Amino acid sequence: MLPFRHVAIIGMGLIGSSLARAVRARMPSARLTVTDADADVRARVIELGLADDVADNAGAAVTDADLVIIAAPLGAFAGIGAEIAPELAHGAVVSDVGSAKQCVFNTLSPLLPSGVHLIPAHPVAGTERSGPDAGFATLFVDRWCILTPLPDADETAVAQLTDFWARLGSRVETMDAHHHDLVLAVTSHIPHLIAYSIVGTAADLEGVTQSEVIKYSAGGFRDFTRIAASDPTMWRDIFLTNREAVLEVLGRVTEDLVALQRAIRWEEGDLLFQRFSQSRAIRRAIIEAGQDTAEPDFGRHHSDDQPSSASPSSASASASSGD
Amino acid sequence: MLPFRHVAIIGMGLIGSSLARAVRARMPSARLTVTDADADVRARVIELGLADDVADNAGAAVTDADLVIIAAPLGAFAGIGAEIAPELAHGAVVSDVGSAKQCVFNTLSPLLPSGVHLIPAHPVAGTERSGPDAGFATLFVDRWCILTPLPDADETAVAQLTDFWARLGSRVETMDAHHHDLVLAVTSHIPHLIAYSIVGTAADLEGVTQSEVIKYSAGGFRDFTRIAASDPTMWRDIFLTNREAVLEVLGRVTEDLVALQRAIRWEEGDLLFQRFSQSRAIRRAIIEAGQDTAEPDFGRHHSDDQPSSASPSSASASASSGD
Repeated sequence: MLPFRHVAIIGMGLIGSSLARAVRARMPSARLTVTDADADVRARVIELGLADDVADNAGAAVTDADLVIIAAPLGAFAGIGAEIAPELAHGAVVSDVGSAKQCVFNTLSPLLPSGVHLIPAHPVAGTERSGPDAGFATLFVDRWCILTPLPDADETAVAQLTDFWARLGSRVETMDAHHHDLVLAVTSHIPHLIAYSIVGTAADLEGVTQSEVIKYSAGGFRDFTRIAASDPTMWRDIFLTNREAVLEVLGRVTEDLVALQRAIRWEEGDLLFQRFSQSRAIRRAIIEAGQDTAEPDFGRHHSDDQPSSASPSSASASASSGD
Repeated sequence: MLPFRHVAIIGMGLIGSSLARAVRARMPSARLTVTDADADVRARVIELGLADDVADNAGAAVTDADLVIIAAPLGAFAGIGAEIAPELAHGAVVSDVGSAKQCVFNTLSPLLPSGVHLIPAHPVAGTERSGPDAGFATLFVDRWCILTPLPDADETAVAQLTDFWARLGSRVETMDAHHHDLVLAVTSHIPHLIAYSIVGTAADLEGVTQSEVIKYSAGGFRDFTRIAASDPTMWRDIFLTNREAVLEVLGRVTEDLVALQRAIRWEEGDLLFQRFSQSRAIRRAIIEAGQDTAEPDFGRHHSDDQPSSASPSSASASASSGD
């Protein structure tokens, strides 16, 4: 039996449109109503045939739905909450896919009527692309989806939402919203902020032209540009809504970077070597946990004679370095 | 006619062993002698059959060679220079593949005999892997190789070395060593330093466990761990030898990061949006310049129904954000 009979998705960007495709693929008998604030996006969603109905607005989209998922930037949640509140069916589960979770309670709890279940969620998945054409049904497969219900949340509703995400291929975890926001500040928000920052710095530097930065980006810089190509509205909203946790972690990041800067200035080679040696174990653990590819260079295509997925020996052997 | 008749490679890690494979593939009639400071690596190179001869030491490797390429960490250059100096053939070209170039002159010029041509080089290519098993013949294809000859360098020698790298598939550029070191600080050294730093910070943070960092790394963090898995000895030496340029650029990086930190603290959403919007153009230019893949997520494998290399529309379209 399906966990939900009628799913409404508000926002049809990368995540919303991937959700629509995944629901279609994994729960074909569920009714699917979607909407987006942008009329061009709604038209494109109709062309792509991603849903049973494409509603003109969020209020119309949620009527009769027993699961409502908000897949819009966090800054749009207050407006959407006000719009859907009078239309929500009694007993409906209201969830989302936002990258910060404490703010979802702060924004939506005062707006929603009693008798609906607010259970925020965050699928830790994505690409640097945006828009309804960028989505794909398998985006959530083997990725974690974190639910952050309040301690007194309805157990059946939490179980249904867990079942829903599991059917899309996700591994589901439950966590306190505040802790979620700290963990994601480290694993996602700070990496994006630093990527945006360094790409901006490189583009605007005395003595080095932008075309030189582009030409020689294969030295490492290009790895940062991928996540810095993510949707700027979405990320602005994440930093504004997860402000405290981001600033807290950023303080530690700056401190550690300044320590490395000092080690370089004072030519403390042993300290540098020791710090640099720790990272390989983390990379290895991420690959073993199935959270990244084991192929060198992220599996970027070089040619047929590149060693494939590679034996452990080639990953750890090192010439002339003794490590 | 081949630019060089007898190539000697000192150091058989990722770059040295890729060079050996590429010389074999593209210039099969050139004689190839290699060596490595590590006896286990030498034994492995013999097993892999990567060269005509595997010499026991650098001095023995360079006898009779008309091109000598040092492919060892920069910290080993002084020792190697002293060892090869008495054995170098008159007229030989001595080059390298190090990621900093001013220091190559500082270290090697006083050691080398007159009558040999020191022409430092830097192929801007690599993966996070190390050791002789990690190399592959096409590593340098469509990547830039930067030569940094002195203004009075022998023109024939520079032309021969240019020809050599072009035959391996590289695009060759010539540049002043000091300018090279600044450009590479931006495009390679600082990204690596920041990646090492943030991976270290994340591994050692109050309130968030290492296993949580690993589990939720798909949110962006995993992109940093790839280059932070690079060889720690090599990178220690790069930061120590390109100290001035790295510290100079790092000052700007910290300044810009602190400005973003301030914008988050004071909730300056417009400033954040404006800064985040600039990065997409840089990413696009890097892809257009053939320096990275256009596929989302670096082409990491999701499934068959992911949109492939993607139309420009799907890369720029964005739902609910208006950009």
